[in-house]
Order: sequence, then C-alpha cells, then structure tokens
Amino acid sequence: MKKVLWSALTPAEQQQVLLRPAMAASDSITATVTGIIDRVKTEGDAALKALSAQFDKVELVDIRLSDEAMKQACDSLPASLKTALREAYRNIRSFHAAQVHRPLSVETQPGVLCEMHSRAIEAVGLYIPGGSAPLPSTVLMLGVPAEIAGCGRKVLVSPPPIAPEIVYAASLCGIDEIYQVGGAQAVAALAFGTESVPKVDKIYGPGNSFVTEAKRQVSQAIGGAAIDMPAGPSEVLVIADERANADFIAADLLSQAEHGPDSQVVVVTPSDKLADEVNEALARQLAELSRAGIAEQALDNSIAIVCADMTEAVAISNEYGPEHLIVQTENPRQYLNAIQHAGSVFLGDWTPESVGDYASGTNHVLPTYGYVRTYSSLSLNDFCKRFTVQELTADGLAGLAPIVTAIADAEGLDAHRNAVTVRTQVLENKNGGGS
Amino acid sequence: MKKVLWSALTPAEQQQVLLRPAMAASDSITATVTGIIDRVKTEGDAALKALSAQFDKVELVDIRLSDEAMKQACDSLPASLKTALREAYRNIRSFHAAQVHRPLSVETQPGVLCEMHSRAIEAVGLYIPGGSAPLPSTVLMLGVPAEIAGCGRKVLVSPPPIAPEIVYAASLCGIDEIYQVGGAQAVAALAFGTESVPKVDKIYGPGNSFVTEAKRQVSQAIGGAAIDMPAGPSEVLVIADERANADFIAADLLSQAEHGPDSQVVVVTPSDKLADEVNEALARQLAELSRAGIAEQALDNSIAIVCADMTEAVAISNEYGPEHLIVQTENPRQYLNAIQHAGSVFLGDWTPESVGDYASGTNHVLPTYGYVRTYSSLSLNDFCKRFTVQELTADGLAGLAPIVTAIADAEGLDAHRNAVTVRTQVLENKNGGGS
Ligand SMILES: [Zn+2]
Ligand SMILES: [Zn+2]
Repeated sequence: MKKVLWSALTPAEQQQVLLRPAMAASDSITATVTGIIDRVKTEGDAALKALSAQFDKVELVDIRLSDEAMKQACDSLPASLKTALREAYRNIRSFHAAQVHRPLSVETQPGVLCEMHSRAIEAVGLYIPGGSAPLPSTVLMLGVPAEIAGCGRKVLVSPPPIAPEIVYAASLCGIDEIYQVGGAQAVAALAFGTESVPKVDKIYGPGNSFVTEAKRQVSQAIGGAAIDMPAGPSEVLVIADERANADFIAADLLSQAEHGPDSQVVVVTPSDKLADEVNEALARQLAELSRAGIAEQALDNSIAIVCADMTEAVAISNEYGPEHLIVQTENPRQYLNAIQHAGSVFLGDWTPESVGDYASGTNHVLPTYGYVRTYSSLSLNDFCKRFTVQELTADGLAGLAPIVTAIADAEGLDAHRNAVTVRTQVLENKNGGGS
Repeated sequence: MKKVLWSALTPAEQQQVLLRPAMAASDSITATVTGIIDRVKTEGDAALKALSAQFDKVELVDIRLSDEAMKQACDSLPASLKTALREAYRNIRSFHAAQVHRPLSVETQPGVLCEMHSRAIEAVGLYIPGGSAPLPSTVLMLGVPAEIAGCGRKVLVSPPPIAPEIVYAASLCGIDEIYQVGGAQAVAALAFGTESVPKVDKIYGPGNSFVTEAKRQVSQAIGGAAIDMPAGPSEVLVIADERANADFIAADLLSQAEHGPDSQVVVVTPSDKLADEVNEALARQLAELSRAGIAEQALDNSIAIVCADMTEAVAISNEYGPEHLIVQTENPRQYLNAIQHAGSVFLGDWTPESVGDYASGTNHVLPTYGYVRTYSSLSLNDFCKRFTVQELTADGLAGLAPIVTAIADAEGLDAHRNAVTVRTQVLENKNGGGS
C-alpha cells in the first residue's frame, strides 16, 4: 500500500488522498434497470422467469421455495455450521432486542399529554446476494431485527440456486417466504408485486450495481418501496499507535480487501515504522489467501497515512468517515468521544472487523461512501416507524388556547384558530354562560 | 363533502375512494429545477442573486441577514406573539428533549461488549417557506430538535423578505445563520454550498413543488445532501362516533382544508346522521373563513365514509394511512393499539389538529401521501445518527472465535478467518506454547 506523510501534503492534496473513487451508475445500467423494472411491472412472474433464465441460467418452475425444499436444505447443513449460525443469531438477537422502543409520554403542560409510539413495518423484503459464496450472515443481519420488530411479512429473495446456509439462517429468523429470484428483477418484484411475489413496504440488503440501482429507482417511484440506505463500496480505516501489532492490522485490512476490488482500505498512524511493518505483513499474508487476486486489486487503492499524533489521526478519520473504524491503540476507549463519523467502531487489539461482520451482535449493514455523516448503522429502528399521539383534557385545551390562537393569527390561518375557539366556547358556556 | 356508504362499495370501489390524487413532478418542473441546481453549482452567489431577482423580485445585496437586521426584526414583534412563540418553544422542547438517545451497552457473551452511540448531524439546513403568511411554527419544529441534538451549524433559508416572526422563532432556537434565499436555488445552495451559504449535510422542511423536487434531486446526487422525508399534500382523517360534536369535526376539517387546494380531508363514522351534520356545519363555518376559496377547493375532493362500526373505521383509517388522525369517540384511547399507520394521532374531543400544528409539543413535520407505512414523525432521531461499537477482551475473542471462523469458512472468506486466528494464535502461544 502507498504511504504518505500527512504534514507534507497541502490541504488540497490531503483532501485528494481521502477522496473516494467516483461512483455513479452508468447510463447503461440505469437504462437496463429501468427496462427490467417496467417489464416486471407489466409481465409479472413471466418476466421473473424469463430474466432468471437469461441472467442466472436457471429455468424456474416455482418461484417460491417449497416447504419441502426448505426442510431438505436445513437438513443438509453440517451440524457445526448450524451451531455457529445459531450462536451468531443469539448474539445479534440479544443486541437488537435491547434496541426496542419504549413508549414515550410527556405532559408538556397541565392537561397536555404528548406520546411517541412505535409500530413494525408491515411487509419487509430482504435481498440476499447469490454468487460463489453464500452470505448467511447477511440473512441474520436483516432477519433478526425484522423478527424482533414483528414485521407481519418477511420476504427473502436471492438468486437461484439458493444455498442451504441461506435457507437455514432464514429459518432461524422465522422467515418462511423465500423466492428464488435475484437482481434488479427481484427488487422490482418486491416493490410492485407479481402473481407470486408479494409487494413489500421496504427493501433491505446489499447487492451488485444492478440491485443497487434498482433499489434507488423503486425508492423514487410513486407506489414503489422505501429502502434501507444508499449503497457504496465497503471500507475500513484503522487507527494504530506504535505499539500496535502489524500482523493484526494487515489481517484486518485484508479481510476488508477480499470483499471486492473496489474495497477501500486506509491506515492512519503516527508511527512510520508501523506503516512499514504493516506493508511487510500484508505481503506475507496476501500470498496465502484464496481470494488474493481480489484483495490485491483493492490494496492498489489503499493508503497508509503517517500523521503527527493520535489527535490528528482521529481528525483524519472523522474527515474520511469510514464504514468500519478499527482502533488499535493503548486504551482505545479514550478516543470514543472524539469519534464523530463512523458506521461501526472496533476497539482494541482483540476486536477484528470480522467479529462484527458475523457474530459480536452488532449489525454489519452500515452506511459507507461517507454516508455516515447522516445515516446510521442498520438497527431495529429501520424495521419500525414511530408516530406521535396527543391527548388534551378540556382544561388542557383551555390552557393551550391562547398560544395556539396567537400563532394561528400570525400565520393567517383562521380555521386553525376556529378549531380551538369552537371548543373553548362550549367550555365557557358550560362554566356559566360565558359571563 | 361527498358521502359514501362503505358496505355498498365493491372492494375495487373502496380502494378507489381511498386513492390519493396522482402526484409526480411534471417534466417541466424537473427540468427547471435541474437547471437551477446546475446554475447554483457553477455560479454560486451570483446565481442566487439573479434567481431571487427573477422569482422573488428582490435585489439582494447581502444574502445573509445581518445581526442588526435580526435584532430589529425581533424588536419589532408584538410582545403577545413573542410570549406565545416562547411557550410553544417550551412545550416542543420538553417533548423533544425526552427523545434523547441513551447510550446502549450489551455484553452479548462473556467479554463481548456491544454498544450504540449517537452523534448530532454536524450541519443542518432548515427550509422555511415564504409567501403571504410566515410560518414561525415550522421554524420551531425544525429548530428545536436541531438545537437539542447539538448540531454544529444550523442554517435557515427562507425567501426574501423574511418575516420578523421567522427571525424571532429562529433566535429562540439559537439559530444565528439566516440566509434570504428561497426556492430550488436555496436547496441547491444548502446541498452544494456557495461563497455565502455553507454546504450542509441534511436539509429539512416543507416547500412548494420546486423546493420538493430540488430536495429530491439533491438527495440523489453524489456529494449532495440527505433530506428529512418525501413530501406530499397535507391530509387529515377523522374517526367519529355518533356522540361526536359535528361543529368540532367541521372545524378540524376546515383547518386542514385551508392549508391548500390539494389538502386531503376524510371523515369515517358509523353514524350517517353525524356525516350529514358535519356537512351542514361545514357550510356554516366555511362562509366565515378568510381562506374560504382555498378550503372550498380542498373540500371538493373530500369524502365522508359511513361504515359499519368502529372496528371497520379503524381498519379504513389504517388502509388510508393518514398524516393526521383525529379520533373523536367515547374513550378514544381504546383504539390506539389498533392504529397501525398514522403520522400523528389526536385523541378525544379536546384535541384539535391545530394544537399539534403549533404548541402541544409534538412535531408537525409528518409523513404524508401514505409514507406513514415506512416513515416516522420528524423527531430528534432525524437530527442525529447512531453508530455501533464493539470491544472484545482476549477471552471474549477466544470464546467468539469458533463461531466467526465457521461462518467465514461457509462464506469462503479466508482473510476474515485469518483476522481472528492471527490473534488467537498469539493468545495460545502466550498461554503455554500451544500445548
Ligand atoms: Zn467483512
Ligand atoms: Zn395545519
């Protein structure tokens, strides 16, 4: 990885170093996806079958996975993997259950009660990518909060053939509706519904550039569906001091790099020596990886920034706003208050990113590409919506009336005033004829 | 308003009755807004001045309102209105302060600590519409949560000339950056920044169709800004039983109808007699309104639905998913658990919608046009983002290692496994050389 000395750079060069590669769906992807969405809207299941034959080379008979096929898939899985998935499920469940909304109730002035309540989103669609390696962990990250929220309908889609790991993870979360369809056509089916696939209210999960563009398009369509968050390439930034273990850091960088050639990998350290040691460790560890080719491409864009001190390291991290932030320093918790922008933070030498990817309990669906400035880690919140309630007593309304009528007058809204006075007049008449 | 008997309709006709008018930015608005955004991006302040001259007929010298002008505006306001705004501020503050995120900490298994923390969004842009009647209440609804969250920069924009009510409400919320610019050009300035107007991270607030389309476009642009929620025409649905006061209901419907000709107004009641009484009350009250013309247009699309009973009334309301839901029945709280989709709920005879618009304490920025199915009432949450933290002890990692490595193997991600084993090997060596 390339090494730069932060203090030797001009402010413009510093900005340049932290700049992410340009990301925009190409016009051809945009048009292809628009075409697929239109086709699914008009042709329904027939379009799903035709597109699956074209893209996935699978001739689908039934789009929905049968109960029998689900049971077979679960039975086929090795017991050791089932145990691991169950234990991951338990930790993820324990952290997300702690996020349950407690109803809020405040009497803002006498007789004026304001509350906030939460309800599950009724129907959710969970997109799980297919490809060479199945991602049961993503099933848990989407399925567990949907289960805890109590979403009425949890619909999982994934390109055929669907791996047994995915089916088993889904069964742990109480998901019994699985459809063997992927790509932009699956997103279109979830957003608008077909004969087989139900329309859902909100769509979650990662995918390739077609899936991402389809989610974007349906989120902008009237009658479409909401989506979890905008997507971007995965990222890690590691802050390390001179005492950090270069092998640990290299392993963490590679675990990010192997996700894809567009993965972003950054190290920030006040120790020039450590930066060099990490580079040596990277070379050693890279050789042994099955996905070395992918990781190597990602490392081509990676960078080690040598900075003045830990305060500057945290400032650089805040400017970048990484999806994953690993802090491998003496007493890492001392920096937590200064961290402003990150998707998920990994504190200390014994907390590699892969624990959060799978099993610590936190969610691995995180804002990336700088969206951490405004978006949150996926949480139970994203599977619910909250509404307010107010309830006034007659005296409460009488007490609030002068405030409401004064502001209604200032805004020139007579009927807003009347809605209060038509009531207070009744009260005055009751209390003795309006004296 | 038109009256229909629910049981006399086919399911298709029932759907038709609850259908909202089609809403989509016309191609001409989309193109105009794209042009304005491009111009502000390239010409900056010069574009803001030229567009203000063109659309607002104001020749701006300074885009930012001076401290002196702010002070003068505040001094010019009648004391009674200041008092009302201060009291509304106090109630809104009290309800939103109760929403402050409490840091969450869960030890999911021994030595595995998972946490969730919250940070204010750094720079927020608050759009306040101009026009004949200023909207100081909207300033409070956006400014109070921004103040409580602790947003570093609170930037208010509004078309010139900015009314003193708006300036005073802003000053209550600690907002000292006010820019005299409105329309799509103001949204573009907030999203991308100009010489005078700072770029912000997220843009909030209502506006006309140009503002709405500009918010949509910048929310989709790389390097743009996040937005609060999608917009639509304002709506109310009233559920009432036979004992409800028709005058109260008519006043509530009119307070919604006077917002604009596209306002949606629905009454659902099991009492045919009440539906007729509401219609008579509407005719009486309408005559006296200053905005009678606007309200009358909105009432043209309004509807009274006569249903079988209260259970069906709540079901119809859930199907519609109103922004505002008023429940004027005996013991209205009994229906709260059954309410699934609403932006804000007003319980009982003494709780008109206008109390929530101004002063009860709840936020009046609410999802509309059916977006209540997935979006929440604006709250403190929307001015913060949450990230997770995990911290493992060495023993914690040793305990979690078998789970993580089993799932990494299933997903075919070697480097994810290595990030764990490179650490556990060090631990094993420490603990006596790997037996
Ligand atoms: Zn990973
Ligand atoms: Zn109103």
